[in-house]
Amino acid sequence: MTMHYTPPLRDFAFVLDEVLQAPQVLRALPAHAEIDGELMRQVLEEAGRFAAHVVAPLNAIGDREGCRFERGMVSTPLGFAQAYAQFCEAGWPALACAPEHGGQGLPHVLDCALYEMLSAANHGWTMYPGLLHGAYACLAAHGAPELQARYLEKIASGQWLATMCLTEAQAGSDLGQLRTRALPQADGSYRLTGDKIFISGGEHDLTDNIVHLVLARLPDALPGSKGLSLLLAPRVLPDGSRNGVQCTGIEHKMGIHGSATCSLHFENAQAWMVGEPGRGLAAMFVMMNAARLHVGAQGVGLAEAAWQRAMAYAKERRQSRAPGAAGTDVILRHPAVQKLLMEQRCRIEGARLLTCWAGLLLDLAEHDSDATLRRRHHERLEFITPVIKAFLTDQGFQCASRALQVFGGHGYVVETGIEQFMRDARITMIYEGTNEIQAIDFLMRKVLADDGRRLHDFLALVEADIDGAAGLVEQGRLLKDAVDNLSRFAIGITDAAREKPVLPYYVADEMLRLTGHVALGWMWLRAGRRALSALDSDPAWYGSKRDAACYHFAFVFAEVQQLSSVIEGCLTTGLPPLPTDLDHHAAQEAG
Amino acid sequence: MTMHYTPPLRDFAFVLDEVLQAPQVLRALPAHAEIDGELMRQVLEEAGRFAAHVVAPLNAIGDREGCRFERGMVSTPLGFAQAYAQFCEAGWPALACAPEHGGQGLPHVLDCALYEMLSAANHGWTMYPGLLHGAYACLAAHGAPELQARYLEKIASGQWLATMCLTEAQAGSDLGQLRTRALPQADGSYRLTGDKIFISGGEHDLTDNIVHLVLARLPDALPGSKGLSLLLAPRVLPDGSRNGVQCTGIEHKMGIHGSATCSLHFENAQAWMVGEPGRGLAAMFVMMNAARLHVGAQGVGLAEAAWQRAMAYAKERRQSRAPGAAGTDVILRHPAVQKLLMEQRCRIEGARLLTCWAGLLLDLAEHDSDATLRRRHHERLEFITPVIKAFLTDQGFQCASRALQVFGGHGYVVETGIEQFMRDARITMIYEGTNEIQAIDFLMRKVLADDGRRLHDFLALVEADIDGAAGLVEQGRLLKDAVDNLSRFAIGITDAAREKPVLPYYVADEMLRLTGHVALGWMWLRAGRRALSALDSDPAWYGSKRDAACYHFAFVFAEVQQLSSVIEGCLTTGLPPLPTDLDHHAAQEAG
Repeated sequence: MTMHYTPPLRDFAFVLDEVLQAPQVLRALPAHAEIDGELMRQVLEEAGRFAAHVVAPLNAIGDREGCRFERGMVSTPLGFAQAYAQFCEAGWPALACAPEHGGQGLPHVLDCALYEMLSAANHGWTMYPGLLHGAYACLAAHGAPELQARYLEKIASGQWLATMCLTEAQAGSDLGQLRTRALPQADGSYRLTGDKIFISGGEHDLTDNIVHLVLARLPDALPGSKGLSLLLAPRVLPDGSRNGVQCTGIEHKMGIHGSATCSLHFENAQAWMVGEPGRGLAAMFVMMNAARLHVGAQGVGLAEAAWQRAMAYAKERRQSRAPGAAGTDVILRHPAVQKLLMEQRCRIEGARLLTCWAGLLLDLAEHDSDATLRRRHHERLEFITPVIKAFLTDQGFQCASRALQVFGGHGYVVETGIEQFMRDARITMIYEGTNEIQAIDFLMRKVLADDGRRLHDFLALVEADIDGAAGLVEQGRLLKDAVDNLSRFAIGITDAAREKPVLPYYVADEMLRLTGHVALGWMWLRAGRRALSALDSDPAWYGSKRDAACYHFAFVFAEVQQLSSVIEGCLTTGLPPLPTDLDHHAAQEAG
Repeated sequence: MTMHYTPPLRDFAFVLDEVLQAPQVLRALPAHAEIDGELMRQVLEEAGRFAAHVVAPLNAIGDREGCRFERGMVSTPLGFAQAYAQFCEAGWPALACAPEHGGQGLPHVLDCALYEMLSAANHGWTMYPGLLHGAYACLAAHGAPELQARYLEKIASGQWLATMCLTEAQAGSDLGQLRTRALPQADGSYRLTGDKIFISGGEHDLTDNIVHLVLARLPDALPGSKGLSLLLAPRVLPDGSRNGVQCTGIEHKMGIHGSATCSLHFENAQAWMVGEPGRGLAAMFVMMNAARLHVGAQGVGLAEAAWQRAMAYAKERRQSRAPGAAGTDVILRHPAVQKLLMEQRCRIEGARLLTCWAGLLLDLAEHDSDATLRRRHHERLEFITPVIKAFLTDQGFQCASRALQVFGGHGYVVETGIEQFMRDARITMIYEGTNEIQAIDFLMRKVLADDGRRLHDFLALVEADIDGAAGLVEQGRLLKDAVDNLSRFAIGITDAAREKPVLPYYVADEMLRLTGHVALGWMWLRAGRRALSALDSDPAWYGSKRDAACYHFAFVFAEVQQLSSVIEGCLTTGLPPLPTDLDHHAAQEAG
């Protein structure tokens, strides 16, 4: 049984060249006039080779060994540092950074694909470079020129890694409760004091400096999240001395053991403001949106890697007679196993289309020559980002769990190597904003806040594609029904919220998932039709893709019925009453 | 924050006394003429106290320490052996065993409740006594008198523990591939040789003898599962010498670390036939059905325990302003958290009703004075067993994952103690027959094999209750629609299978889950109506229960729409074509 990771290069080519026509889209942008399909394929091939040959072999050992913490220092698992050095040598950190800062200036969509493959190969390892591009983008957008001069190239090259220091013990989803203080100094710098927890890569042995981006509060700051500022505090100061930041421990976690999740104590640490004082959240959100897109891609990568192992096992393991077969058969021939595998495949391939579509939006939002279009692409990206983060990580975890199920009892045994994917994938539903927070962000800010304008812009794209080509007529009809429902529900929720402002919060999750299914259905409709039109050129490959599109609509897409039924019910008969304390023990404990 | 386990005694009283009227049902049986509600309450109170005070405190340490294997011996985690000794002293193993074999002769429904609470308190520990009653029932039904005399009382008292030795490396779901051999000896005994894996409690330090029930093949046996016999091989022989069975290792697993999952090597081990040669599976299935019911109860218990922790955290953790609130609020006031918690509560309380209903069926099937009724109860139990096993363990795992989600990032940290429940719960979807196998068993053997007779018997019970009482009219209508769909689908699948015999295998999972929702909806309808009628006596408690019933139908029950849509689609437009090898990499690898 082959247990390595095979980069899904053929599928990336299908997604980028054939469905999204990424080379044409990108070439229309002045910054990417040189891009062609061949170049993109070469980059992905190299990226895939790196993920499969350098990073994937360290995945199991990273889980087994984990990180060690001793006297303020963190040692990463054996091989991690060397792989990271190779990563930098090959120029991967700089992939989507601007040439003027030492970057390669390649499109973001390739960065998304790179991170899908890295996460598939080794989620724990990928956490270290994972925040690199976000920190780069944040500094590039908001950093003062001196700060950029000092840090941008080092970050772009990967020579120094970066962190996002947000969470404190009392402030998780609610950043307004942050207590870390920044005191202004005469020289224009600041002194930071406070305690942060859950800082990925807060301390490690991969680079000699770490650039911390820290949310903190100035002495005269407003209370709540409006009073937050973003500051940069390096582990090592420009004069080579250690800054006042100390790792006080690392978490013992369910998964991603190779990633050091640190508690950091800042004590009079020297720091510099990034962006305007009091505008820290806005500056930080430059990181957060790209980060959330990458988290969605992690969901896809983890599901893909788990799926590959389950496929390999299903092709090899013989158990029982399949229906209609003569003797015992490989379990791949058993309908129950086929269903587990096909559902994963549909969710993964649809999700890959969606993350790549969003990656292209990031390129368009940055580089379109028309400012109006840039804004529209940016709005589309903002609209779809919470859906990608929440929907694709929910299903990434589900897919990893289903991959485990294919192995039966062997899946529960650590040495088999599949259960790690499920444990690793679980965090993606939580970090960078829990999936519940994503749903509220999506419905309240991205749908209701502008009376559904962005929703209708998105649905118009979907509808244009439903009507715009032939094939998969029945699937197009199913998708159209869901589009109509979604549109109707948005209006219904707006109306109902006037009388009952709390109502949207109770259907936010369903609205996000319904939108996720519409987005995935849209992608599968496009993929299925492309497969139909190219069928003659490679009947096996395109036939398989067309069949997957049909399977998606027959089995996976049906969840829209459940979601629509819940929302419809809440709109027509109102929210069910909630028990005051929700608790079935209350009476007993009181008694 | 209180992290202990609170036995849900008030809810058990509601389920048993008020909804299922268990005391009346049981008193009608000659064997249980002495049972009353007060006695049942006392037993459950004691059971709850044992689970909460003796077993629960060992849960985290069992996970952390795990079992140790050294030179063929297994040490269980600190405290496990002492807790087991207390368990035996208090007479819990004998709870539902017959008085003539030293048992207490109490109803099975109490045993179900006991095992829900034990699993909630400590799943790993509960694995040891978990098979005790199954082995007892198997021996009581099929063992020769000498064998019964030698082993029944020791098992009933818990003095000796038992195992089920089925799985071999090449034979998991497919027992027909078993290779372990049993050679007949002149004295009527047998000699066993072969290797078994995944044997829970195959070796440990809780009892000085272990009674292995082993599936094996006689020299002249038919090939496949018809050639299997069941044999009893004790670790220690009647003369006090060690038998030829050796533990060769224990598994390193995702969860239930406190439970020793052993590989056993039998080498010329002395053994005795249980039941008829070649009828081993039939004898084993006496164990399997009770075991599957208990696995369903494990799903409920693990979900309950995880839910309790999430509730406690949600009542204490302050983050952000809830909609409509003035300042930061405990997260229990946030709709997104309320939804996570209410869905768990609905699934748990509905499931508790269902397992207790099935536990009562077990009592009725054993003790009804009318043989025709005994058979009917037995058939009902057989019908619902795969649903309970698969549906309740799927949702048990989901509930544990949602409980983890309530904790946010803290949920991913081992010390918080919640992630263990998710890891532990994951095995319940696999062992005692994977949930996929349950679905096939359900649809092929329990629904289609007798042209839907058992399904219609079950649905008639549900319909009688829909029409039989007032209140929750709209919910009753939703349930009736699902009943009608299920009935129609069974006929449609039978018809479609004539032309396409493979079709049922592709909708087996959906049919099982649809039946599971009908069963849970049925239970919630009964619970909700009972709550309505008792509202005046305790408005807070019954009001909360009524609200939960409404919540269940508004949010949880809606999954029937998805399931019905999938089945309907497969029946009307046919199965979607499946790609020949399911694989999106195949073409690439070939090329």
